[in-house]
Amino acid sequence: MHPTITAFEDSPDEGQGLARDMRVRWALEEVGQPYDVRLVSFSDMKQPRHLALNPFGQIPTFEDGDLTLFESGAIILHIASTTTGLLPDDPIARARASMWMLAALNTVEPPIVEREQATYLEGDKPWFAERLPLLDGRIRARLDPLARWLGDAEWLEVEFTAGDLMMVLVLRRLSGMDLLEEYPNLSSYVARAEARPAYQRAFQDQLAVFTHRN
Amino acid sequence: MHPTITAFEDSPDEGQGLARDMRVRWALEEVGQPYDVRLVSFSDMKQPRHLALNPFGQIPTFEDGDLTLFESGAIILHIASTTTGLLPDDPIARARASMWMLAALNTVEPPIVEREQATYLEGDKPWFAERLPLLDGRIRARLDPLARWLGDAEWLEVEFTAGDLMMVLVLRRLSGMDLLEEYPNLSSYVARAEARPAYQRAFQDQLAVFTHRN
Repeated sequence: MHPTITAFEDSPDEGQGLARDMRVRWALEEVGQPYDVRLVSFSDMKQPRHLALNPFGQIPTFEDGDLTLFESGAIILHIASTTTGLLPDDPIARARASMWMLAALNTVEPPIVEREQATYLEGDKPWFAERLPLLDGRIRARLDPLARWLGDAEWLEVEFTAGDLMMVLVLRRLSGMDLLEEYPNLSSYVARAEARPAYQRAFQDQLAVFTHRN
Repeated sequence: MHPTITAFEDSPDEGQGLARDMRVRWALEEVGQPYDVRLVSFSDMKQPRHLALNPFGQIPTFEDGDLTLFESGAIILHIASTTTGLLPDDPIARARASMWMLAALNTVEPPIVEREQATYLEGDKPWFAERLPLLDGRIRARLDPLARWLGDAEWLEVEFTAGDLMMVLVLRRLSGMDLLEEYPNLSSYVARAEARPAYQRAFQDQLAVFTHRN
C-alpha cells in the first residue's frame, strides 16, 4: 500500500503548483515514494470524514497505515525524516535544513498569505489600495534578508534540502505580485528548483487533475 | 558548556511570556537542560554579529557547540528530537506531536499575529475599527476547530508534547483580545499548561530579566 494524500478537486489556481498538496507531491517525488491521491471538494473538506483527518478542514492530509497527518510542513518533516534525499545525514546540517523549512512557514509565508487574503477577502474594501504598500513592505522585510543570505549560492545551505523545497514553494506564492522580480537571485533560486525532475513530475501530476478533466 | 539562547534586553511585554524566547526557555526546562542567555537590544539585533545567527534579525537564537539555529519552532524541534520529555518514543505519536507544533505555527498563529500587527502598525488608520471584526473572524475560524478537537481532553494528543507547548504559547498571544475567553476548554488548556513546573521556571526566569533591573 502506498501512502494517500488529499488534494483539491477544484483548485483556485487550477493546478499551477500553488495549492499545498504540491509541497507533499514534490517531497514524495524527491525521495522516490509512490503515492495515491484522493481528490476532495470544498464541501468534502467540511465533512466529518475529512475533519477527522484535519480538524481545520484543509488539504493536504497524509495517510500511511496507522499514521494520519495534516499540515504540509509536518507531512514533509515526516517524509524527510523517514527517507533519504530531503535532509542531510549530518546532525548539524539536518537541524539547519529543518530550520529553513520552519523559517519558510513561520517567517516568510505569513506576510505573503496576508497579502493574498487582502486581495481575495478585502479587495473591494475602500482601504485596500492604501494598505497594499504596507503589505508589500512587510513582504520585502522578509525577502531582503533572505536574498542577502542566499547571495549567489545555489541553495540555502550547502545542498538542496526540504528547507529549499518549502522556501521555493512559499516564494512561488508571490506569483502575480511583482515582488519576487525585484530580487534576481531569489528568482533564479526558484527557477533552479523548478528545473528539478522531481518538481517537474509533481507539477505535471497536479496539473493533470485539471487538464484531464477539460 | 551549556547552550546559549538570545532574548530581548527590552521586551515589549516586559517579560509576560509573550516574547518567543519563552518557547525555548520552557522547552529547555521541560527536558532539564541548563542554558545561558545573552540579552540583545533592538539595535544589537540589526548588527552583523546577530544577523550571522539569524538573517531576519529576530530572537531567539540557539548556539550549542558548532550548531547555530534561529526560528523558535526549529530550535524546539531540535531540543525535542535530541532529548526526552517533549516528543513520545512511538514513531506515530512522535509525528503527530510535531504536527501540532507545525499547526500552531502555520495555521493558528498567523491570524493572531496579523491582529497584533494591525493594532501596533495600523491602529491609527481610519480602517482599523472596521477591519477588526474581520481579523477576529479569521482567528475564530482557527479556534473553533481547535476547541472542537480538544473537547474535554487534557492535551492535544494522549500526553503533553512539544505540540502543546507551542500551541499554548501561541494561544497566550490572544491575551487582551477577549477571544480566548470565548472558549472555556481552550482557556483551561492554557491554564493547565501554565501550571507545569517547567513553565513556571521559564516564566520567572524571563520575568526576572525585567524585574531585576527596576
